[in-house]
Amino acid sequence: MLNRVRSAVAHLVSSGGAPPPRPKSPDLPNSTSAPPAAPPQAPRSPPARAGSGSAAPARTVEARASFCRPTFLQLSPGGLRRADDHAGRAVQSPPDTGRRLPWSTGYAEVINSGKSRHNEDQACCEVVYVEGRRSVSGAPREPSRGQGLCFYYWGLFDGHAGGRAAEMASRLLHRHIREQLKDLVEILQDPSPPPLCLPSTPGAPGSSDSSHLVGPQSCWSSQKEVTHESLVVGAIENAFQFMDEQMARERRGHQVEGGCCALVVVYLLGKVYVANAGDSRAIIVRNGEIIPMSREFTPETERQRLQMLGFLKPELLGGEFTHLEFPRRVQPKELGQRMLYRDQNMTGWAYKKIELEDLRFPLVCGEGKKARMMATIGVTRGLGDHNLRVCSSTLPIKPFLSSFPEVRVYDLTQYEHCPDDVLVLGTDGLWDVTSDCEVAATVDRVLSACEPNDPSRYTALAQALVLGARGTPRDRGWRLPNNKLGSGDDISVFVIPLGGPGSYS
Amino acid sequence: MLNRVRSAVAHLVSSGGAPPPRPKSPDLPNSTSAPPAAPPQAPRSPPARAGSGSAAPARTVEARASFCRPTFLQLSPGGLRRADDHAGRAVQSPPDTGRRLPWSTGYAEVINSGKSRHNEDQACCEVVYVEGRRSVSGAPREPSRGQGLCFYYWGLFDGHAGGRAAEMASRLLHRHIREQLKDLVEILQDPSPPPLCLPSTPGAPGSSDSSHLVGPQSCWSSQKEVTHESLVVGAIENAFQFMDEQMARERRGHQVEGGCCALVVVYLLGKVYVANAGDSRAIIVRNGEIIPMSREFTPETERQRLQMLGFLKPELLGGEFTHLEFPRRVQPKELGQRMLYRDQNMTGWAYKKIELEDLRFPLVCGEGKKARMMATIGVTRGLGDHNLRVCSSTLPIKPFLSSFPEVRVYDLTQYEHCPDDVLVLGTDGLWDVTSDCEVAATVDRVLSACEPNDPSRYTALAQALVLGARGTPRDRGWRLPNNKLGSGDDISVFVIPLGGPGSYS
Repeated sequence: MLNRVRSAVAHLVSSGGAPPPRPKSPDLPNSTSAPPAAPPQAPRSPPARAGSGSAAPARTVEARASFCRPTFLQLSPGGLRRADDHAGRAVQSPPDTGRRLPWSTGYAEVINSGKSRHNEDQACCEVVYVEGRRSVSGAPREPSRGQGLCFYYWGLFDGHAGGRAAEMASRLLHRHIREQLKDLVEILQDPSPPPLCLPSTPGAPGSSDSSHLVGPQSCWSSQKEVTHESLVVGAIENAFQFMDEQMARERRGHQVEGGCCALVVVYLLGKVYVANAGDSRAIIVRNGEIIPMSREFTPETERQRLQMLGFLKPELLGGEFTHLEFPRRVQPKELGQRMLYRDQNMTGWAYKKIELEDLRFPLVCGEGKKARMMATIGVTRGLGDHNLRVCSSTLPIKPFLSSFPEVRVYDLTQYEHCPDDVLVLGTDGLWDVTSDCEVAATVDRVLSACEPNDPSRYTALAQALVLGARGTPRDRGWRLPNNKLGSGDDISVFVIPLGGPGSYS
Repeated sequence: MLNRVRSAVAHLVSSGGAPPPRPKSPDLPNSTSAPPAAPPQAPRSPPARAGSGSAAPARTVEARASFCRPTFLQLSPGGLRRADDHAGRAVQSPPDTGRRLPWSTGYAEVINSGKSRHNEDQACCEVVYVEGRRSVSGAPREPSRGQGLCFYYWGLFDGHAGGRAAEMASRLLHRHIREQLKDLVEILQDPSPPPLCLPSTPGAPGSSDSSHLVGPQSCWSSQKEVTHESLVVGAIENAFQFMDEQMARERRGHQVEGGCCALVVVYLLGKVYVANAGDSRAIIVRNGEIIPMSREFTPETERQRLQMLGFLKPELLGGEFTHLEFPRRVQPKELGQRMLYRDQNMTGWAYKKIELEDLRFPLVCGEGKKARMMATIGVTRGLGDHNLRVCSSTLPIKPFLSSFPEVRVYDLTQYEHCPDDVLVLGTDGLWDVTSDCEVAATVDRVLSACEPNDPSRYTALAQALVLGARGTPRDRGWRLPNNKLGSGDDISVFVIPLGGPGSYS
């Protein structure tokens, strides 16, 4: 594990690549600032739980990067081979005998039926200790005061075009979140509103008053209230961005060629933050009720954002694509006829006369799982994909992808949860063939068959969900009980119980 | 009225100004195409109801434009003066003796308490007949076949920086909607799916099949289903855009200097379409339940769209504004300190080191009613404002404003409505001081005190809503019963009953 921590620190301080033109968080390691020393609090942190990464520390970096599973699965070399077997598709879970995941979280995964050589999903579950970078008041922190924060962290990463980006994100994204939270350790534990401005001079107080404001504009005569919660949201948003920038810098050295969707959960100070960038999905099932905790980002759901970008920056379309959408491909022989279309402003459709440039490929096309952006990619948010180009072209796709998650917040203290209330995270392998209601029915069926105090019930539930989406081999395919095809994709599921977190915080 | 129709047609065919670079609907009158003849079906249309416009036809165009109220109010010159009296603020409604508005719609309005010389709200209520432009099959229409469509139309227009834009929109927007629907008359009455492509050759059939599709892309192997409903939505969206373009072309000749919010309702073939661009608001109150039918577009709700535009097109900020948001004005002495900010991607807040360019005015600032874009305007969608500039600057604001409405659809046939189920439209004068729940309570109180078959009950309700928002003069102001200040703005309200439309369609 020490090797892994060192490796992570090395990643954080390594350099290369041009920084994108957006504000940098102060003191965050990046290629343009001086490399900070290794975090001084690392030896004093609580021992980190086994995260994702190498299951076989003795193997070379290359071998590990080519295929690894979450360390918390504690797979032996033989188990690793079985987990990699497309024919058997054995469901993997942490062993019942070892140390449980925090909160008795349940986890299960299964490899795809052959669409890629290895399982390109990755997962991570950690308890992360954050020590403040320095006092808000500017004075150096006294290490003995023990004013740090702990957060609980779960992450699912669904890789595409290779597993490297997912593997890297599963190792490092929570460390970026920790970096972003370091500035906030004291602020988040202080019940007064966050200071709007922090001094550059040590010892000077942060300011939150506006008594010295000037200017005639009425919109300036007041100030916005910023909540502690929105600071955590901002920290998670920026952590995603910095993770993506790190992938950009290190993509050559570490062969980070593909990309990944990221769905992470942070539990901090009584609140659950669910951050999603991609097409994974999270729901809470509470007393049978379904509460969606994320939405998917695809060419369909983000059509107007993508079209607007193509309209405002036509050079990104390279003369190969049109920002207009048509309900089907326009044929050259239809030139001069009128076809249904919609642009970046419209949700409805109208007819337009087909002109020469409408014969270009549309930026967005297709529906449902077949929807594609630039005829290439089916998700529009995530990490990585810095080298992704349009097929048979040099046109880069990355400018249209966003690394920013949508963050939803759930206050655990506002409701008295029972042991059957859970937060379910799944990659699209689960949701492609399973509806929210079917998940809720499985939650009810499995948990009501287990003792409420049996800590293995959440793993049993995760396994049932994965098995229900995978199906069984029959009639030349993996099939569900209703004889429809099961998911041939990688499937990964976390089941996080909401009934008992109080004892861990 | 004939003069008004002629005037409208003249507007539609007049020229001037450069067309914006977006697809044009075919055959729509604009400055670059040949002026069409006056609509041939006009004499055969049902007599149009009295719309908004001149209440005193004998007055000059200039005088009318300077102050007019909806014609359906049937105001005498004396009544017009009373409606224009800021001291009395008498509530205006159509007379109980005249012809009722369609569906026995209720309407009431009151002038502001002095913030502008005249009432800058306008309203329109019409039954509009649409005759198809030509047969989809390309054959000329036979006028005797009577295959036209009727739609019912209600519009509220809240002007700013003068009343001209609101007055023009109230006269013409429904005509633009009619223009857009002309192509769809046959398609909307044909139960089969709309043709995706219309022939340019008369007599050739429209195509909706994809059997001749080529190309290896799986996203191209299918075609999208386009519904009749989405064609109506597209027609309304484009009508808003063409109305805005007409204002741009004619702003010099007709002194259309300000802008307006537009909230319109179209009832067509069993469905209610509510289109909103601005900060007016529509709700349905059905059996006591509140169904929001619009959302407001302000610098707060559209922050990320505005910031994204400023980020992608920094030249629009003219070196005067920053696209970043800060919770209060940044002071020059705070240079180098760290302040909370958020950019176009963030919903949370984070700290950044203040640099020189952060001292520029932020593109978006303030909260609630004080929120402003470019320190100037508090709404971000609507019609007009083509000449609007940043105060003490030549920087145009229009590029950040959108003329596109959000359209919500409500299917009247899916629910058996009772006489107390209503759609309430109000300008912000109503909603600034009245919550959805308070409106619903007034609906219940007023309608339950009237006979269900009394057609004047909806006007009584509209009057009660306007009076409840205006208050009464007390303690040097217009005050509500709880002694809070009433609305000093113009207030206009439509109450549309949902229980009886079947007999009109």
